[in-house]
Amino acid sequence: MPINPDAVGTTSEPVELSWSSKDCLLYAVGVGAGTDELAFTTENSQNVPQQVLPTFAVLGGMAGSGGAFAAIGSFNFAMLVHGEQGVFLDGPLPPEGKVKITNRIAGIYDKGSAAVVAVEGEAVDAGSGQRLYRTTSSLFIRGEGGFGGDRGPSGSAVQIPDHKADHQVTYHTSPDQALVYRLSGDRNPLHSDPAFAKMAGFDRPILHGLCTYGFTGRALLHTLCDSDPGRFASMEGRFSKPVYPGDTLTVSMWVDGDVAAFRTETQRGEVVIDAGRCTFRN
Amino acid sequence: MPINPDAVGTTSEPVELSWSSKDCLLYAVGVGAGTDELAFTTENSQNVPQQVLPTFAVLGGMAGSGGAFAAIGSFNFAMLVHGEQGVFLDGPLPPEGKVKITNRIAGIYDKGSAAVVAVEGEAVDAGSGQRLYRTTSSLFIRGEGGFGGDRGPSGSAVQIPDHKADHQVTYHTSPDQALVYRLSGDRNPLHSDPAFAKMAGFDRPILHGLCTYGFTGRALLHTLCDSDPGRFASMEGRFSKPVYPGDTLTVSMWVDGDVAAFRTETQRGEVVIDAGRCTFRN
Repeated sequence: MPINPDAVGTTSEPVELSWSSKDCLLYAVGVGAGTDELAFTTENSQNVPQQVLPTFAVLGGMAGSGGAFAAIGSFNFAMLVHGEQGVFLDGPLPPEGKVKITNRIAGIYDKGSAAVVAVEGEAVDAGSGQRLYRTTSSLFIRGEGGFGGDRGPSGSAVQIPDHKADHQVTYHTSPDQALVYRLSGDRNPLHSDPAFAKMAGFDRPILHGLCTYGFTGRALLHTLCDSDPGRFASMEGRFSKPVYPGDTLTVSMWVDGDVAAFRTETQRGEVVIDAGRCTFRN
Repeated sequence: MPINPDAVGTTSEPVELSWSSKDCLLYAVGVGAGTDELAFTTENSQNVPQQVLPTFAVLGGMAGSGGAFAAIGSFNFAMLVHGEQGVFLDGPLPPEGKVKITNRIAGIYDKGSAAVVAVEGEAVDAGSGQRLYRTTSSLFIRGEGGFGGDRGPSGSAVQIPDHKADHQVTYHTSPDQALVYRLSGDRNPLHSDPAFAKMAGFDRPILHGLCTYGFTGRALLHTLCDSDPGRFASMEGRFSKPVYPGDTLTVSMWVDGDVAAFRTETQRGEVVIDAGRCTFRN
């Protein structure tokens, strides 16, 4: 059964999602935060109140997307690739929270071989109804194009300057990174099982795109926002190549006022997150 | 208020404890299991059913000890040091389980400056009542000795041979090891907060003794039991020196039939688990 392009505009029923302090700590170590980031990795260090990495919000975005997805029709989930991811925060996330998430199919595009589905999510505090964050995702579904639809926007609004970056931060992922990160919810064996990864066409398991996203978010937070999640307004980027656990990630940033373009590369010189855009509050 | 030596023999009310597959996976990465140990770090790798590290049982032993402890009297918890730990398994642990744990104060000894409390725990399956494991712990409470009690057993029954070990396994702990391990339950800031560690007399946070114990248990399991938890019968050892996150641990084993003596040393040559004894099923 092909994809249903008329699903555009479908909004999911609100899905309730809650998280605990421990969930935030587990996420933080999963995206490589360590002993230099005790505000994010501990809840009981003296004079260091627990804070939450802004990119933690993307987990919540994913959680509620099932409802909207049902409208798209059936497709082979193994053919789905994460294309782009954005997160927009109204303020710092609390270490414990309960939100209601709605997701909307914002667009379905026909790229020939693949279909691209754009999803927009919104999370409001379950108690007050106040919005905490928004997310945007675009998902490539290989083999589902060719239905005669609109090609959609091509290229990116973000231009990476061709001069030297204003800032560069390098982080090392560990060979076991995916084994820790997956405990935050995405148990796709593509990230842990060599046999499954081989079937999917990879030499070995690849790191979760959202794990690379979290490492990148840490670099942006510490460099552009003085480690203050309250100053982190948004982050958008496009997944362009796989990362392997154990790879080194270098995040380059070009700052213009309260906006920065960024990209993330591995030690092989491959760009893995491209066309990045981060906004921050001064 | 001093310690009450008459507490010997006190048995706690049964405490119920349950664990999930995720708890076992989180424990496994906390004690350094990685991509070579997918049976312990994943639940969905092809033809690799999830198994549980035998030392996971010591978490359960700790969980139920509060009830028995109440009888001892009040003491400064910050003065408590883990002395010895044993675990005795009736068979492999299930990835999901619910047990009832009882703990008994087996002895209270007067070492002059410190009191030593020996605790014996037993965990039975909450449904069938069948025993799954036993634990033994001895806890040093500094400053609580001198009450005129029995000094208790001195020295160890285990002799580490003075000839070359039959097997040696070296593992690296990561600088962030304690930040992952603590998510399995022991949030004592001695293991994460530099300010707290300094107050306790350490240059920096020290690794959880039971984390070192878990690393050591992996070495015993893979070397002596062919990685089969069903063959791992027991493990006992004495904590003799602190380990710092980032240290390298070398476990030396001397085998005699289905018993092995073992000890664990750091790259500084300091013995951190001494007088170790492991029994296994052939």
